[in-house]
Amino acid sequence: MTDSDFRPKARRPRGFQDRRGGLLARERAIVEQVLKVYEAWGFERLETSAFEYADSLGKFLPDQDRPNEGVFALKDDDDQWMALRYDLTAPLARFAAENFESLPKPYRRCAAGPVWRNEKPGPGRFREFWQCDADTVGAASPAADAEMIAMACAALEAVGVQKGQFRINLNTRQLLNGVLDAIAADPAQRLGVLRAIDKRDRLGEQGVRLLLGPGRKDESGDFTKGVGLTPAAIDRVLAFVEAGRDSRAATLDALAGLAETAEGAAGLKALTQVCLVLDSLGVSDDQARIDPGIVRGLEYYTGAVFEAELLIETKDEDGKPVRFGSVGGGGRYDDLVARFRGERVPATGFSIGVSRLASALSAAEQVQTQGPVVILAFDQALMGDYFAMAAELRNAGIAAEVYLGGSGPKAQFKYADKRNAPAAVIMGGDEKAKGEVSIKDLRAGAVIAAKSGDDRAAYQAARGEVQTTVARAALVAEVRRVLAKE
Amino acid sequence: MTDSDFRPKARRPRGFQDRRGGLLARERAIVEQVLKVYEAWGFERLETSAFEYADSLGKFLPDQDRPNEGVFALKDDDDQWMALRYDLTAPLARFAAENFESLPKPYRRCAAGPVWRNEKPGPGRFREFWQCDADTVGAASPAADAEMIAMACAALEAVGVQKGQFRINLNTRQLLNGVLDAIAADPAQRLGVLRAIDKRDRLGEQGVRLLLGPGRKDESGDFTKGVGLTPAAIDRVLAFVEAGRDSRAATLDALAGLAETAEGAAGLKALTQVCLVLDSLGVSDDQARIDPGIVRGLEYYTGAVFEAELLIETKDEDGKPVRFGSVGGGGRYDDLVARFRGERVPATGFSIGVSRLASALSAAEQVQTQGPVVILAFDQALMGDYFAMAAELRNAGIAAEVYLGGSGPKAQFKYADKRNAPAAVIMGGDEKAKGEVSIKDLRAGAVIAAKSGDDRAAYQAARGEVQTTVARAALVAEVRRVLAKE
Repeated sequence: MTDSDFRPKARRPRGFQDRRGGLLARERAIVEQVLKVYEAWGFERLETSAFEYADSLGKFLPDQDRPNEGVFALKDDDDQWMALRYDLTAPLARFAAENFESLPKPYRRCAAGPVWRNEKPGPGRFREFWQCDADTVGAASPAADAEMIAMACAALEAVGVQKGQFRINLNTRQLLNGVLDAIAADPAQRLGVLRAIDKRDRLGEQGVRLLLGPGRKDESGDFTKGVGLTPAAIDRVLAFVEAGRDSRAATLDALAGLAETAEGAAGLKALTQVCLVLDSLGVSDDQARIDPGIVRGLEYYTGAVFEAELLIETKDEDGKPVRFGSVGGGGRYDDLVARFRGERVPATGFSIGVSRLASALSAAEQVQTQGPVVILAFDQALMGDYFAMAAELRNAGIAAEVYLGGSGPKAQFKYADKRNAPAAVIMGGDEKAKGEVSIKDLRAGAVIAAKSGDDRAAYQAARGEVQTTVARAALVAEVRRVLAKE
Repeated sequence: MTDSDFRPKARRPRGFQDRRGGLLARERAIVEQVLKVYEAWGFERLETSAFEYADSLGKFLPDQDRPNEGVFALKDDDDQWMALRYDLTAPLARFAAENFESLPKPYRRCAAGPVWRNEKPGPGRFREFWQCDADTVGAASPAADAEMIAMACAALEAVGVQKGQFRINLNTRQLLNGVLDAIAADPAQRLGVLRAIDKRDRLGEQGVRLLLGPGRKDESGDFTKGVGLTPAAIDRVLAFVEAGRDSRAATLDALAGLAETAEGAAGLKALTQVCLVLDSLGVSDDQARIDPGIVRGLEYYTGAVFEAELLIETKDEDGKPVRFGSVGGGGRYDDLVARFRGERVPATGFSIGVSRLASALSAAEQVQTQGPVVILAFDQALMGDYFAMAAELRNAGIAAEVYLGGSGPKAQFKYADKRNAPAAVIMGGDEKAKGEVSIKDLRAGAVIAAKSGDDRAAYQAARGEVQTTVARAALVAEVRRVLAKE
């Protein structure tokens, strides 16, 4: 090593994760299963690079010397600013615009990969995480939005979220815009109204009312300035936001009287068409509901918006029930490709937050990943036999490894426990001479050890249940028998 | 959009790729299958983040204001330099050092992911590409090296490289060091000797001889300075480099007289042990051969080194045969974790270049990815029927999609062709009324269209073979029949 005088401290960068074990296995399974659904629905896989030119990313355009505002950016050696993608939609918009002529239209693509946000890290807030997206570019039809929603249901069910454990909440920005136009809110007020509505879950109706009107003081005494709407305007906003009913048909009826402008009417018409297609795709009212209070980001979406809400209740470290809330979302963004091409290109998409969904599912049900069968190496002269046994087990579809360290029997058993091995295979010189091999059931062993505590006699008595000796030729059959035990 | 005045040019950053279609499918399959093998051999998955602190990456330590030498680096807001990983080994070394106490030892881990190199891009040379690695940390035993080699064989076979289409070439740096010590080469000379040996494939024995001696002038007239060894020393180096025989046993015999120093003798002993384990793991001489001329990088490896060479011959654009050469490599690196911990931690690993291997396999055998069945949408009033048919096909395990654009029949057929759809499903008002549906075999259609050329009569005559009309209830069965045709 050239830099042998310098000894760096081994440390993970701030806000980043090392993922392994059950949580990683869960994430990998989600990505695999969701992409399988997307592909079955005709979405073609695309992998773009981690970097995009910063100007392609839109609102994060660098305008300073080191523009690390929200993204990780650096200057390439030809002086162009590049940034790591902060989502999978901006790269798609760039790709679709760059290859527009040659792509089939509508162009359906799916993708999974890490995205990066240069934000202040916090508990559960990481600066790198995975998303799994599907988008349809070049389809103005509300059927494309409905397809996204139905596919989101199929994807969630594919990863093991049962019917009744999730709900897609659906809305359209056009209806919201109609209400804002009707109360003639100026741009700053519009933003304030959307922000206030977005806090409905946390603050309740009364809190939102204060934010829409004179302002709100929270428990700590901090004051948030209000939007300053008139009481009549506030009523109008809230009547709209609270118009959600249990069935989509009933909500459409309730909204009929609230779409006052031309844009609002167009939104209601599109929403009605989305619901018709959802019906024909067999999406129930329990799976997808209209919720006029859904906002999903401030600028970006131009029509339908939807989010996937997890209804599974989990407990936090203190045992308090926790709502996970949204694990994905999407909507119609007809302006994103237009940034490059000048002409409007209708597009709609859906994104699953893989890491969030994995955390939610892992919290709801602890996954214990099983390690490989470990072949202990008590006698270095028998390494050839050990490797041959490992190969036999693998050929039978059983993950297996040989202990390769230099430690004694006790440390080897400890190693097998650390590896979560379900069984250990033991062959010393005696067994070898007799043509035998021993298999220790490590899961049963752990149970018995826990039960008998310090009672060595009880432990010894139960030993027969956990360790068996069979003919060498019966290795695979015996390991299979042990693994099949519950 | 806030930045509507500005229209960026949609362009992929220099040296990066957008991957889709057959090549991407091939890459994904390689990653999946190789990881499956690694896991079956007891290697646990780990995913570290894209970033590491720059000092963790070792030789790429930033020492300038913008240290983009080889890596993509940026300063975090706490003034620490971070860099994107340039391989998967450096992050493993950092992780193993950081979590050394709690890890099972030996610690076997596998990983797959993109790595980034800030280098001048060129044809086929990208700045982001995938690797798929396995490493064993904390095992000094030559058996761990042998396991890597045997597993590399299993991994290559799992992705479809047949026995005889690849070879693992094996060597050890200790033997090489022994030869260098015996001819008393100083540090600069040692580097020169390694570089010269590394060019053996390209320059042949005579070229290497010149590089080891007085220097070499190439065809363009450029002169490369030689190492300046004596003729006797050159003979010694070449005797070693050319000691490879067809069988490992014969090579070990040939090397026996060439290991002159203590380090050389230790290397020969370790190499002999590796070969013993390879024998017991059933790795043939065709699969893994000792090649004393293998160098693999200049600083880094401390013992065994090996590379996976693809023997499949492919043709370049001009039809000339092309050797792909190495698609992966690895070896023993006992110093890498030591950088952090001060004490030596023995480690060995293997890395497959996913993108390189995918290119090689794709060049050898063109993969045609099949698109989904496309349900044409001739009648907007029947969208519900179209979606129901798509759902039926998907439930039967057949990828299917509904055309969602606004164009007419001709453009819809063109769309289906662009999507590589094997079949199109057609239902207009007439078919609907009769309870029927038509299926067009697009693969057969393309063949007939190509055969009949402009002969419209011939085309019409053959039409019956490509389009059938069946009862609506027979949709899935008929599509299955069409897809099963060759």
